[in-house]
Amino acid sequence: MNGADSLCDTLLANDVDVCFANPGTSEMHFVAALDRKPRMRCVLGLFEGVVTGAADGYARMADKPAATLLHLGPGLGNGLANLHNAKRARTPMVNVVGDHATYHVRYDAPLTSDVEGVAQPMSHWVHRSLTAQALSADTAEAVRIARQAPGNIATLILPADAAWGELPANSPAPVVAAQEAAAPADAAMLRAAAQAIRSGKRTALLLGGTALREPALSVAGRIAQATGVRLLSPTSNRRVQRGLGRTPVTRIPYPVDQALAALNDVQQLILVGAAAPVAFFAYPGKPSLLAPQEHAPIVMATPEQDLLQALEWLADELGVSPSAPGLPPVEIATEIPRSGALTGAAVCLITARRLPENAIVCDESITQGREFGISNAVSAPHDWLQLTGGAIGIGLPMATGAAVACPDRKVITLQADGSGMYTVQALWTQAREHLDCLTIVLANRSYATLHGEMKNVGVQSPGHNALRMLDIQDPSLNWVHLAAGMGVEAVRVDTVEAFTQALEQGLSRKGPYLIEALI
Amino acid sequence: MNGADSLCDTLLANDVDVCFANPGTSEMHFVAALDRKPRMRCVLGLFEGVVTGAADGYARMADKPAATLLHLGPGLGNGLANLHNAKRARTPMVNVVGDHATYHVRYDAPLTSDVEGVAQPMSHWVHRSLTAQALSADTAEAVRIARQAPGNIATLILPADAAWGELPANSPAPVVAAQEAAAPADAAMLRAAAQAIRSGKRTALLLGGTALREPALSVAGRIAQATGVRLLSPTSNRRVQRGLGRTPVTRIPYPVDQALAALNDVQQLILVGAAAPVAFFAYPGKPSLLAPQEHAPIVMATPEQDLLQALEWLADELGVSPSAPGLPPVEIATEIPRSGALTGAAVCLITARRLPENAIVCDESITQGREFGISNAVSAPHDWLQLTGGAIGIGLPMATGAAVACPDRKVITLQADGSGMYTVQALWTQAREHLDCLTIVLANRSYATLHGEMKNVGVQSPGHNALRMLDIQDPSLNWVHLAAGMGVEAVRVDTVEAFTQALEQGLSRKGPYLIEALI
Repeated sequence: MNGADSLCDTLLANDVDVCFANPGTSEMHFVAALDRKPRMRCVLGLFEGVVTGAADGYARMADKPAATLLHLGPGLGNGLANLHNAKRARTPMVNVVGDHATYHVRYDAPLTSDVEGVAQPMSHWVHRSLTAQALSADTAEAVRIARQAPGNIATLILPADAAWGELPANSPAPVVAAQEAAAPADAAMLRAAAQAIRSGKRTALLLGGTALREPALSVAGRIAQATGVRLLSPTSNRRVQRGLGRTPVTRIPYPVDQALAALNDVQQLILVGAAAPVAFFAYPGKPSLLAPQEHAPIVMATPEQDLLQALEWLADELGVSPSAPGLPPVEIATEIPRSGALTGAAVCLITARRLPENAIVCDESITQGREFGISNAVSAPHDWLQLTGGAIGIGLPMATGAAVACPDRKVITLQADGSGMYTVQALWTQAREHLDCLTIVLANRSYATLHGEMKNVGVQSPGHNALRMLDIQDPSLNWVHLAAGMGVEAVRVDTVEAFTQALEQGLSRKGPYLIEALI
Repeated sequence: MNGADSLCDTLLANDVDVCFANPGTSEMHFVAALDRKPRMRCVLGLFEGVVTGAADGYARMADKPAATLLHLGPGLGNGLANLHNAKRARTPMVNVVGDHATYHVRYDAPLTSDVEGVAQPMSHWVHRSLTAQALSADTAEAVRIARQAPGNIATLILPADAAWGELPANSPAPVVAAQEAAAPADAAMLRAAAQAIRSGKRTALLLGGTALREPALSVAGRIAQATGVRLLSPTSNRRVQRGLGRTPVTRIPYPVDQALAALNDVQQLILVGAAAPVAFFAYPGKPSLLAPQEHAPIVMATPEQDLLQALEWLADELGVSPSAPGLPPVEIATEIPRSGALTGAAVCLITARRLPENAIVCDESITQGREFGISNAVSAPHDWLQLTGGAIGIGLPMATGAAVACPDRKVITLQADGSGMYTVQALWTQAREHLDCLTIVLANRSYATLHGEMKNVGVQSPGHNALRMLDIQDPSLNWVHLAAGMGVEAVRVDTVEAFTQALEQGLSRKGPYLIEALI
């Protein structure tokens, strides 16, 4: 056996049994080792942004890390944007980045770069293994770090000679890292939160992380129903459990003015695993902090702490019994369109209404999808995965990974067209792995967000150069052709009737399918 | 006017008049400023790897930098792989990377990241402008650094409030950076090279950078013809001028054993703007340094020095007159196939034979293109741009930029299919800008290089997991559909006759066209 075998054995011993990969020459010993470990599921991405985005989607649904396999600094660079999203989601992930043999680095061969430097900005932990002997312990440490609540990006740099270095047959068995429990919330912080709620001021709980999932979500719902506190979530979340029968939580809107309005009458904001809400971007004359500044937000529990335990303590402290009722379902008055020209809102409303039970929704709908995030409160119960770090190009890869994690659940991607192009190669992996992914492309042929932002900076009528940057027509993309180019069947629709029919078609089959919704 | 205006004015005043861009919200003031500068040509890429690769191709042909416009750390991350290639090519480039307003960074909004950290590994120079007032001088400094011989990657970080900061109407005019001449080569180094050649040992000149272009290339040819020294080039070069009537230079092969063989009988290796040749990767039991180790290579001139002047001095010193004959054309005995099943070699031979005069060849042909690099010695004179840093995904973007720089020349891309998928979005920019780009996809549906490398690590028969990583069939890509999805007309061929016909078709028209060559 060699170092690469030891690395793979240690991943498997620690229950990391899926590897999203885009290997190169320096990773060939690792690939050869994977070949000797049939228990490891290897999923190829044709571009590294697919690999890291898929590992993110996988871990959000599997609640355990996948490994990635990337090729030196440039390969890691290609994966950085979705690593950024995963880091913001606090998704657990173990990246294995191949590098030149230790003695080869000094010769500055063409692919040489500062791999640690590339890794550092988007990793919580970076380590280079220098020998085959070190790999088992280093890999176990990477898994341990990745799994620390709520999750971390651990990047292990694997020099080629550490991978190919021979190990004696009597080498120690793979090192297994203990799964650590999340730290309990601080008692004083919990008491401060309880006291704030009792004060009678207008209070909101801002729920993040696992507080947006069962069973914590139900506890929050009972507290809200009993005390009248509002429940909010950040704009961008790793995984939200949502739909009829679940506690409805209001998402802070993305546009800064709407976000300010949503928080305007909150006198006390209590953070439960969420950070204090801030504007996505700065705008001249507008604040960065969204919550009213008279009172600093009250931190009840940090993302690293046990949020379920914290909410259960709070319910108990406030006298809310486990059998108390939760929040009632919200009323959605909007009518579902039946015919006519297709709009983004129509796509959202129809999709929310028809969502199958237990679906996974990967949401990179950007400007056109806002209706979905309201009306899905009364969809069938589902998991809703969001663009956590603002780095576009997450939707198709995230869906790919979620489908690998949950082969028995329908994965529906609401995908803006401009963002979808960044990592369009993910469709090929969906086809190769026969993943049950239904992609709905909201094709407005524009970076519509930027049109709005141009108005925000005072440009009412963009001229030639600006329009060339904001519109992605001329030529128009054809998603039916793009999908066919990668082995995914697709259909283009531009009416409500045709969309409704295509959606039924997509829901009734198993396997990848794409609907290009011209809106 | 504001800071963004000042930045644009300074770029234009320094003759940087093309901006390859993929902007986001934090760059909206810059986009608004571009709108007020119609002289700046703005070219949108649907992915940042297209943007940086196009800026590389542009500068290789225009001999001056383009600007890029990128969106925070993740947008820059997406551009890193082709920045790595450009850095290795020593291509001049000015990256403008938008970031949050200076006062917004501390709030750690979702898109916040360490932009300097992301930029550093693939830049020669990184600077953050903190105010609108600083932008003109900082931009001029970025251009000055970028243009220093042989070229540098200069990355300027542009906080949103520096872009939107108002400047008084009487602000200083744009700062113009002087164009610096390359440093002369060191006299002692030149004399050492001349003495080595006179010694009569078997000697080779390893030519890099501008030594591979006219007029330096002719001088090298006269020296070689007069003295019997061999002329070699590194495997990967920024720009090689090649074809009938030009000095033929032998490229060091990529495979390590062939590279060692090519240098085996060289007793003295003289470096003229090239680094000492090293293996692309390390392999167990094989050396990193390719040249025989008895004698250290002799550095005659570094890449930063004036290579033309150095070669002219050498010719003069050796008594080679400016009217002395150069090297005769090489003999290429290989027959051009006329019919039958298509192979990579056939595609290369036919394309080399039919290359139009003054074509620009962007070469990311990887395993299937080796024949081209031999037979193009007798093609019509052309420029040949190569994959300099080993980060695949350069071909289509580089062609895009080269075509923007040289609208009157045919750009032909020899594109391996696996590599082409990394930045396939470039086809859309070719369509939008009506660029005269003919793409030939060498579709072997495999990471063929890696198949060879698996054998090198001792795996003769790859199993399930390895094959899933090395083959990109199942499903097969369809490049005709992919191209059509982005507005580029395409044809698929699998015989020599059909390829020959498609090539004639592609050469006879102006505008983007793609041939999928099934080999």
